[in-house]
Amino acid sequence: MATSIVLPIKKVFALVDSQIVVEIKDEHRKLQGRLIAVDEYLNIHMDETTEYIDNQRGRNLGTVVIRGNNILTIAPVI
Amino acid sequence: MATSIVLPIKKVFALVDSQIVVEIKDEHRKLQGRLIAVDEYLNIHMDETTEYIDNQRGRNLGTVVIRGNNILTIAPVI
Amino acid sequence: MATSIVLPIKKVFALVDSQIVVEIKDEHRKLQGRLIAVDEYLNIHMDETTEYIDNQRGRNLGTVVIRGNNILTIAPVI
Amino acid sequence: MATSIVLPIKKVFALVDSQIVVEIKDEHRKLQGRLIAVDEYLNIHMDETTEYIDNQRGRNLGTVVIRGNNILTIAPVI
Amino acid sequence: MATSIVLPIKKVFALVDSQIVVEIKDEHRKLQGRLIAVDEYLNIHMDETTEYIDNQRGRNLGTVVIRGNNILTIAPVI
Amino acid sequence: MATSIVLPIKKVFALVDSQIVVEIKDEHRKLQGRLIAVDEYLNIHMDETTEYIDNQRGRNLGTVVIRGNNILTIAPVI
Repeated sequence: MATSIVLPIKKVFALVDSQIVVEIKDEHRKLQGRLIAVDEYLNIHMDETTEYIDNQRGRNLGTVVIRGNNILTIAPVI
Repeated sequence: MATSIVLPIKKVFALVDSQIVVEIKDEHRKLQGRLIAVDEYLNIHMDETTEYIDNQRGRNLGTVVIRGNNILTIAPVI
Repeated sequence: MATSIVLPIKKVFALVDSQIVVEIKDEHRKLQGRLIAVDEYLNIHMDETTEYIDNQRGRNLGTVVIRGNNILTIAPVI
Repeated sequence: MATSIVLPIKKVFALVDSQIVVEIKDEHRKLQGRLIAVDEYLNIHMDETTEYIDNQRGRNLGTVVIRGNNILTIAPVI
Repeated sequence: MATSIVLPIKKVFALVDSQIVVEIKDEHRKLQGRLIAVDEYLNIHMDETTEYIDNQRGRNLGTVVIRGNNILTIAPVI
Repeated sequence: MATSIVLPIKKVFALVDSQIVVEIKDEHRKLQGRLIAVDEYLNIHMDETTEYIDNQRGRNLGTVVIRGNNILTIAPVI
């Protein structure tokens, strides 16, 4: 069970300073931007944030802090 | 991984005494006002709070305490 | 960052024995009454509680304990 | 601030062995029965439980354990 | 207040190896099966699981782990 | 009560490196892929992830981290 020692949050830590996309729970909405900081609750601090609603580009939000419990997924932008 | 030491909550602490906008989860609603205090759960104490529904100015709410888990995002007002 | 030491919950503690209004998450509903006790999760014990639905006065509920995570905001009644 | 030492959960502890009504979050549903046990998360163990939907009496559920975070309010049956 | 020492979770522990029905929050859905394991968050490991939607028998799901916070109630099958 | 010592999360740890299906709460959506890592909150790190909406195959998502509280069930793919 040694493989389980690498926690999911380590994957997110490794994305600091790179582009990520955060899918919001229940809202057909994604926030894409640069990951500045993340904590153990998956609270996210992003900047250069752009909103996507149903995959259509929306507003530029700049700097935001997102509450972790309302995040569905976090993924790297490839 | 040194950059991840600056926690997302530090960004919010830095906004104490300035104008913030708090987006509520699932409610098309934002609360804008002056940040008085914040804790590790992102519970927020604001005053001079104004409600915005679908980006239209609503009621003046004065002093409110917002439960952190129902907050989607916190951002500075620029 | 000294100002952030005064936690949001302290604002609520200061309202014990006075009239408060508790807005419920996602339900267009508020509960107004006298705050008897509150804890670190913002669980609330109120009495003389009156329900308001879409700002119309509803039932008298008497004594209730409200689970903190389902509370959106707590505010003093002015 | 001495009054805040009496925690909201103490009110619920005091209701063990008596009739309570538990309002479920977002479901227009209440569960009424005898409180057997409660913990710090407001998880509830009830028996002789009866369901009420929009205040109409529904099924007899007997013994149930209710997850605390999905409870909106707990109140004594008067 | 001695009776409150028997925690709600103890009731669930006592159901290990027997048939339980787990009601899911907000989904008109129940999962019935044999309880293999439970933890302090009421996370549930079941096997021989059958889904019921609006009380109609649905798919056989076999082994599942259910996240505790999305559970409304847990009850023995009589 | 010795059987309750095997925690539900142990079942998920045992699935690391194998194919799992994660059912999302309230969204008629499942994510299927290889489990890379899991933690005590049931946060999940998966790769080779494919989305299923109402049981129809959707997008390939590659690597994702899923917030545990928004997961309804985790199950092995048989």
